[in-house]
Parts: sequence; structure tokens; C-alpha cells
Amino acid sequence: MDEIKQQALDIHKKLRGKIEVTLKDNLDDPEKLKLYYTPGVGAVSTYVAENPSEARDFTWLNNSVAVISDGSAVLGLGNIGPYGALPVMEGKCMLFKQFAAIDAVPIVLDVHTADEIVAAVKAIAPSFGAINLEDIAAPICFEVEERLKAELPTPIMHDDQHGTAVVVLAGLINAMKVVGKNLSDCKVVLVGAGAAGVAIAKLLHKYSGASIIAVDSKGIIEPSRDNLNEEKKLLLEFASDVKPGSLSDAVHNADVFIGVSQPGLLTPEMIKTMAKDPIVFALANPTPEIMPDLAKEAGVAVMATGRSDFPNQVNNALAFPGIFRGALDNRVRTITDEHKIAAAETIAAFVESPTAEQIIPSIFADGLTEKIADQIR
Amino acid sequence: MDEIKQQALDIHKKLRGKIEVTLKDNLDDPEKLKLYYTPGVGAVSTYVAENPSEARDFTWLNNSVAVISDGSAVLGLGNIGPYGALPVMEGKCMLFKQFAAIDAVPIVLDVHTADEIVAAVKAIAPSFGAINLEDIAAPICFEVEERLKAELPTPIMHDDQHGTAVVVLAGLINAMKVVGKNLSDCKVVLVGAGAAGVAIAKLLHKYSGASIIAVDSKGIIEPSRDNLNEEKKLLLEFASDVKPGSLSDAVHNADVFIGVSQPGLLTPEMIKTMAKDPIVFALANPTPEIMPDLAKEAGVAVMATGRSDFPNQVNNALAFPGIFRGALDNRVRTITDEHKIAAAETIAAFVESPTAEQIIPSIFADGLTEKIADQIR
Repeated sequence: MDEIKQQALDIHKKLRGKIEVTLKDNLDDPEKLKLYYTPGVGAVSTYVAENPSEARDFTWLNNSVAVISDGSAVLGLGNIGPYGALPVMEGKCMLFKQFAAIDAVPIVLDVHTADEIVAAVKAIAPSFGAINLEDIAAPICFEVEERLKAELPTPIMHDDQHGTAVVVLAGLINAMKVVGKNLSDCKVVLVGAGAAGVAIAKLLHKYSGASIIAVDSKGIIEPSRDNLNEEKKLLLEFASDVKPGSLSDAVHNADVFIGVSQPGLLTPEMIKTMAKDPIVFALANPTPEIMPDLAKEAGVAVMATGRSDFPNQVNNALAFPGIFRGALDNRVRTITDEHKIAAAETIAAFVESPTAEQIIPSIFADGLTEKIADQIR
Repeated sequence: MDEIKQQALDIHKKLRGKIEVTLKDNLDDPEKLKLYYTPGVGAVSTYVAENPSEARDFTWLNNSVAVISDGSAVLGLGNIGPYGALPVMEGKCMLFKQFAAIDAVPIVLDVHTADEIVAAVKAIAPSFGAINLEDIAAPICFEVEERLKAELPTPIMHDDQHGTAVVVLAGLINAMKVVGKNLSDCKVVLVGAGAAGVAIAKLLHKYSGASIIAVDSKGIIEPSRDNLNEEKKLLLEFASDVKPGSLSDAVHNADVFIGVSQPGLLTPEMIKTMAKDPIVFALANPTPEIMPDLAKEAGVAVMATGRSDFPNQVNNALAFPGIFRGALDNRVRTITDEHKIAAAETIAAFVESPTAEQIIPSIFADGLTEKIADQIR
């Protein structure tokens, strides 16, 4: 890991920025200047001002996405601010281009309340065809996304929530095939009630109706607790008959463990109390809730992590490129749960014969972006 | 003109965006993903968060500019809103790349009060190495720029004001050589007290101490008027002994006429009342305050317009690429009057032997950006 750190620092310092703005046509000729800039562009501006719904046909709005973060929950690093967030957002913009041919621009914000973030994003929204919210801490991220979805005509998605949820669902669809169970009959334990956890619970429940017991740092989320924010209260709707207890209590007889929490939370002893053929998605990054070798020794049937050096990497890059490609191409105003479920099913279908070692396709799988995009209508 | 309009509409519709985001390195290899994105980028983010002054060495901050407009004063089209402004801002971004190799991003704002514009720009400021304000109406543009200059560490310039002022000064420096006068001895009449007019008056006065009589749609700007905003009041400081009167009164015995106003305002009869060897910069776009042929018939010695189809085009693209290149490369925090004057002198010096037909160099002049940039320290 230290070697990767040093290599990453070196290559970033060498490149001084991972993306650049380039021209679709050069301007080396005064005649072109007259068309692309004054006086010719005046006719385009007049036309677009009179027909704003056609703006995307005359500008980059048909292919541009803002990757917006306030730097309050960057990777596993926490609240490191806008400058700290910028290298990650530039990286995300690379993924947009590489996997979806989308022109993405990193926007890091120097404001951090929900009101301020909403105001800033609304102010700049006409500049972009779609908006990817990224690495904004819970619970502010929920309010920000909900308000922006309600108030803007622009498609918008908080990828830490929904990108993760889509890929988890895709992986679970295939994991069910490996162990021969139905998700709707499963007891699912979800640890970590931040941005990703809440979105995973919502999407799994919407898709399958499965009972999902959520656990946070204080234990099982259940009705007698007096320290639940709005989103955590919402999680109560997805669980039938939850009682106070610890993570150990929760995983007892569980079919599925999903962790978006802390390294090492899940022990082999806990796994041994789970139902037959347990499925473990240990997604804490970079160190999972349990390491794959320990989990397998304890009897896990299907294992996924967030890491690229183990099989079954739950990687948002499987989902968001296709979702945004589709939203832009098909002029989708709102990215819905149905879109996310369709994206998950599409990703799952890219693994022809799922096995314990392969429930999730490669992000380099040919045609994945296009197939997902086709579902976003 | 109709032909240019149709060509411009056609080519914009064909390209669907004039700029794109491209990658400095592609991501076709999982090993690169580990460096440019997780987990490697985490080390970069941590380092940058701890050393924000070095962010520019690890991100695109060293080369990125936001071109920001609220669409309230776009070209000669007026308040056409953010979507109408977008084609122009994309065009401006092309100029940044072509003439200064700068990665510029169009940001069009859906807010229009000074408070809201300042808040939005401050919110996104950490995303960019410098900020170009564009096509924001007077008098709001003055307050917006002043507050942002005071409150942000980012170099910022409202190009409609200062880019224009720099090129006008450059042209006047050479026009003085053609007619053998000193600017400091000249009577200058400036018509149009909007963004460009105010900035031109400030810069000319700072450079030469010349007496500048400003005229707006109500006549000469003079102390007895009760309808002057703060910026127009400031203009009073640049004129000695102004009396109430019309444009005709103002131009009497004037050495220099500078128009940033309306088509056709200046008549041959007025020119005939000007001092010997009058200089006329008729910069209204696309139709100047007087057409060059009429002006010459009336005895004008040196004529400039804003148009590319006549000699001596006052074009901001002569100035802003070099100014921003220098601000980025030399880590300049504030673009000062001294920088602008140095830029004007540099532009003027690119015409070796000024004549009536050439007081201003071509925007394609070799080395212009670099020479200007070298002055911005």
C-alpha cells in the first residue's frame, strides 16, 4: 500500500491535473472565430435563449456532468475539505470519460450546510446536463439530493448512495443464484447507516421486500431508540420485528451480511451463527469488515468486498457511467428506483453463470455502459 | 450577416458543444485505476488536504479557469439568461485553450443579484485556478468583482471591463504615436458608462492622467446630475471642469472619442468639431458608433472598431489569455492596474511601426500570450 501511495503522489505531481479541456475544432482561422465566437455565436445564443429546451442541441449540455462534492466524506478519509476532495473528483471525471464518454467537471464546494450546498448547486445547474453528487456526508447528503431532485430539471444522483446500492443489488441477485435462495425470503443484516447503507436498504427492500435489520455504532436500529435521525427512522420500515441488540444478535440466522462500516467488525464467530450458505459483502474500504480468507474459513459461501485485489469487487464504476449516459441520451429528468433496479439487473446479467468467485462483472466488460444506458428512459 | 448566422447555427448544431473534457492518461488498465482513483488517490487527497497551498501541483488548479456569467449582458444581446449565455461562454473557453493553453469551463448562473452571484462563485471557487467573470450587467458587475477580489484567494477578472480596457489602452498608446500626441495632454470623450466604459476610464486615467469626459444616455456625466450611481460618480474624478451638456458639446475639441455605447451615435458633423487628427474608437458591436468610411471622410486620423472586418480590431482576446496565463503560472493572487498597464504596453509593442491602419496586433501574433504572461507577476 505504501508503494501505491508513493506512486500515486508521483504520478499526480507529474501530470498536474488528470483531465483537461480540449476543443472539438481548433480556432486557428479567423473565419472559425466568427462562427464559434462573435459575431456568429450571437445567433446561437439568441436561438437558445428563445428555445431553452433545445440548448442541449447547440451546447455541451447533452454530454456534460458536474461531479460535485463539499469534501465532507471523501473516500474513507472523512471531512478533508474541497481541496482534499479535488484529486478524487478529478479521478471520478476520468471514470466518466473512460467508461461513458461523458465530459465531467470536478466542482468542489467551500460550503457545507444543506441550504448552502443546495443554493450553490442550483445556481450553477444550467451549466451541466446532469449532476453527480459525491462524497457528501450523511445525513446532509439525503436532504441535499432530495431537495435538488425536487427543485431542478436536471437529472441528479448521489453516487455514494445509489451507485453503491445498484452494484450491491446486482451482486446479491447473482449471489442468490449461487446459493439457491430467494432474496425476498432472506434475513439481511446491514451494518453502517450512512449514505451508502441507507440507499442499499431502500433499494433492496424496494426490489425484494426482504426484511433488513440495520445496525449502527450503537447497535440494532429499533423503535425504542431515541437517537435516530430521519433516515434511520425510515430504515425501521424495512425490518419486521426488530428488537434491541448488538451486531452479534443481529447476524444470528442472517442469510446476508452487508457492511458499509468499519474494518474488522464481523468476526468468524459471528459468521458461524449465520444461516446456511451465508453471503457476506464486507465493503468497508480499504480494509473490509472481515478479510475474505477468514470469512471463507468460517463458512461464507459468497464473499464480496470493495477491493480490486479480491474477487467480486463492488465498484460504483459498474453503474454510474451507464446510468448517466442513459439519463443524458434519453433526456431523463429524474433517476428513479426503477432505473436503479433495471441497472442492477443489467449488471447482474453480464455474469452468464454466477459462481462464488464471480457474481459481479468487470468494469471493463464490453457493452456494459450501453446496456445500462438503454434501461434509463 | 444572415449567412454567418445560419452557418453558426449549423456548425453549433453539428458539434453539439464546442469543448470537451479529455484525459491526460487513459484508464484502460486496472493498475492505473488504482493510482488515479482508489486506493492511490487517497494518499494524494490526504497530502493536499494537509498542504492546500500545494493543491495546484497535484490537480488541474494550476491550469483551470471558470468562465462565469449570469447571462445578464451577453454580447449586444442583453439579458438573455444562463442558457442563452452558454454558447458564448463555451466560445470563450475555446479562446482560452487556443490562445493560452488554459482549461476553461463555462459556468452559467441561474442567480442574478450581487449577493447571490458572489455566494455562488465563492462556493465553487476552490474548483478552479482562476476566475473570468463575463457578460454580467453593470452596475452589479462592479460590486461582484470587487467583493470577490477582496474575499477570495483566487485571481479574478471581469473581462468585459478590464480586457477591453487593456486593449483600448494598447491601441491608444500606438494611436498617439501615429498622430504625435501625448495621451496625458489629450481631451478624451468616453461614451457609454457600463462595464467596459468605466474600466476604460479608470485605466486610461491611471495610465496617463488624461482628462476623460464621460457621457451616458442622459448626456455628460457632471456633478450637478442627481441620477449617478457609485461608479458614475467615480468617473467625475477623472474629468477636470465638466459642465452639463450633450455628446456634441463633449466632443468639441476632443482629441479622442471612445464609444462603448450604441450604433450611430457619432456623426461626421461632431467629428468635424474635434481637435486636429482626431482618434475614434467606435466599439459598439456589431454596428459601431460611426462606420469607418464615414469617419475617415470626416477627417478621422486613426480609427478602431470592435469588428474583425475592419483594421484595428479592439478584441479582448489580445489581452485575457496572457493575463490569465501569467496569473496562473506566477501564482498571482490579485490582477492589478499595474498588470493591466503592463499588458497594454506589451500588446502595443507588438506593432513595430504603428500606422493609422495598424495600431493593434493580430490576436494570432506569435508570442503575444507569453510576453503578456511574463508581465503578470
